[in-house]
Amino acid sequence: DAIAEVRKNADHFDNIYNVYVLKRDQELEGVVILQSLLKTAPGTKITSVMEEDLFYVNPEMDQEEVANIIEKYDLVAIPVVDDSKKMLGRITIDDIVDVIHEEASEDIQKFAGLTDEQEASASIFWISRIRLPWLIIAMGIELVDAAVLKSFNATLEQFIAATFFIPVVMAMGGSSGTQAAIVMVRALGKGEIWLREGLGKILKEFLVALLNGLACGILLLCASLIFFADITTFKFSLILALALLVIIIFATMIGAAIPVLLKKLGADPAIATGPFVTTTNDVFGILIYLSLITYFFTS
Amino acid sequence: DAIAEVRKNADHFDNIYNVYVLKRDQELEGVVILQSLLKTAPGTKITSVMEEDLFYVNPEMDQEEVANIIEKYDLVAIPVVDDSKKMLGRITIDDIVDVIHEEASEDIQKFAGLTDEQEASASIFWISRIRLPWLIIAMGIELVDAAVLKSFNATLEQFIAATFFIPVVMAMGGSSGTQAAIVMVRALGKGEIWLREGLGKILKEFLVALLNGLACGILLLCASLIFFADITTFKFSLILALALLVIIIFATMIGAAIPVLLKKLGADPAIATGPFVTTTNDVFGILIYLSLITYFFTS
Repeated sequence: DAIAEVRKNADHFDNIYNVYVLKRDQELEGVVILQSLLKTAPGTKITSVMEEDLFYVNPEMDQEEVANIIEKYDLVAIPVVDDSKKMLGRITIDDIVDVIHEEASEDIQKFAGLTDEQEASASIFWISRIRLPWLIIAMGIELVDAAVLKSFNATLEQFIAATFFIPVVMAMGGSSGTQAAIVMVRALGKGEIWLREGLGKILKEFLVALLNGLACGILLLCASLIFFADITTFKFSLILALALLVIIIFATMIGAAIPVLLKKLGADPAIATGPFVTTTNDVFGILIYLSLITYFFTS
Repeated sequence: DAIAEVRKNADHFDNIYNVYVLKRDQELEGVVILQSLLKTAPGTKITSVMEEDLFYVNPEMDQEEVANIIEKYDLVAIPVVDDSKKMLGRITIDDIVDVIHEEASEDIQKFAGLTDEQEASASIFWISRIRLPWLIIAMGIELVDAAVLKSFNATLEQFIAATFFIPVVMAMGGSSGTQAAIVMVRALGKGEIWLREGLGKILKEFLVALLNGLACGILLLCASLIFFADITTFKFSLILALALLVIIIFATMIGAAIPVLLKKLGADPAIATGPFVTTTNDVFGILIYLSLITYFFTS
């Protein structure tokens, strides 16, 4: 008698949504949804209301994958079984809500290079310790920038106005690269991407970067001619705009390609949205900009 | 008879977790958890298994707030009632899972200044249009940087080595400000913060910034003395390290304070994690750095 049996055991569990039917050796045989139990007349055999076709997961599965299954098929609970289909336990949707929050938190922390979530009660030394690693790495990468600038010393001395636009080219490369990386990481996170699709997406990113690079380049050309008329020439503004176009395309490609590459290597693509790629793009941006200036303006 | 009644209606609903008990005028009176229905003997009055003390929400409530309640109290469903407590419908936990994902997506997009989520099928013109606004704003703010650098023209001409470290001070201000903003936005998102707590948190951020600023400052002092010995003096390296300390403290304060301010003004604090605050910090960082250099090195 199905209802009588469930009723006997109902006190042992916190929340019951489904009743799992096991064979004598604990092997998972099927599931009865609590709701359909209510609809059956007392005395009905459990096998007649049981569904044998059900989702289950194994204990080695990544929590994000389990969350994806529960979400995709609108389940309230999923059984966990071992290789011989012996039932080990269940995961309910309220556990999954916590997982989703956790994963979102982790992704967001990666943007800022935070190694761990900060609790409200954390000491200032602990907070300092989780934030410092990234700050030190960022400083190291930006010191490469300093070395690049130093190597262009001759150009800069000859043409001091070129230094004024370093923040512009740095920030624009960083922003467009991060935009591409975030979009790509979200596509990868949903498990949507394969190599062919990946290449298709990267081509699409190239065309978007070309479009946005042209738009920003033209705007910068006009802005530098209007607001910096006293220190720029038309030729300089043109080279500046060209540099911006090249940098936006380059940074967008890097931002879009790195997550795909990380995924292929089995690493977490979300790292690519972090400041590591941004600061690396800073270095390439300055290199591209000063190379163009040096090529066209010094002899 | 409780079970019989529920059984009659069970086919009309997709997923039943709770049975809501209404008065004759549709007013919500209580809830019966499906599980406890199973435990009662047939013929029991529904009022004897009903819980009268239950959570409910009204239709005007923000979806994020509803999600918070469901999560906090581990509910599977919550009834929606109007002002006179008339039952209007229910929200189930699988709706909430979608809300949580949506909110996380929105927060992540704000980091990159994206105005809308990008669908896989979106055209390159549409993608360009959602990314371009932020790129143009960033360029505008960084042109202020160009103007700041131009105003320090005399210092830069006299002291070209000072320009080499502009990327370092820019990036460090941006990174520490973003870290503080992300932590603060997540604290605000959980609805944890009040004005007094807010001030407490900002003070904590100050102490963290002081600690990290000192650590990074000392490292930068050593690095510039070792790797840039040919272009720097001890005095310059000291001023550079001091500038970094001041910038990290300033940027952290801005990053921590802006989300609290936005929340008080009724705006979405997550905007503060976006590139707007980062680029604004770039301007202040360069201003602080070049002011110190000018003060100590030119006469």
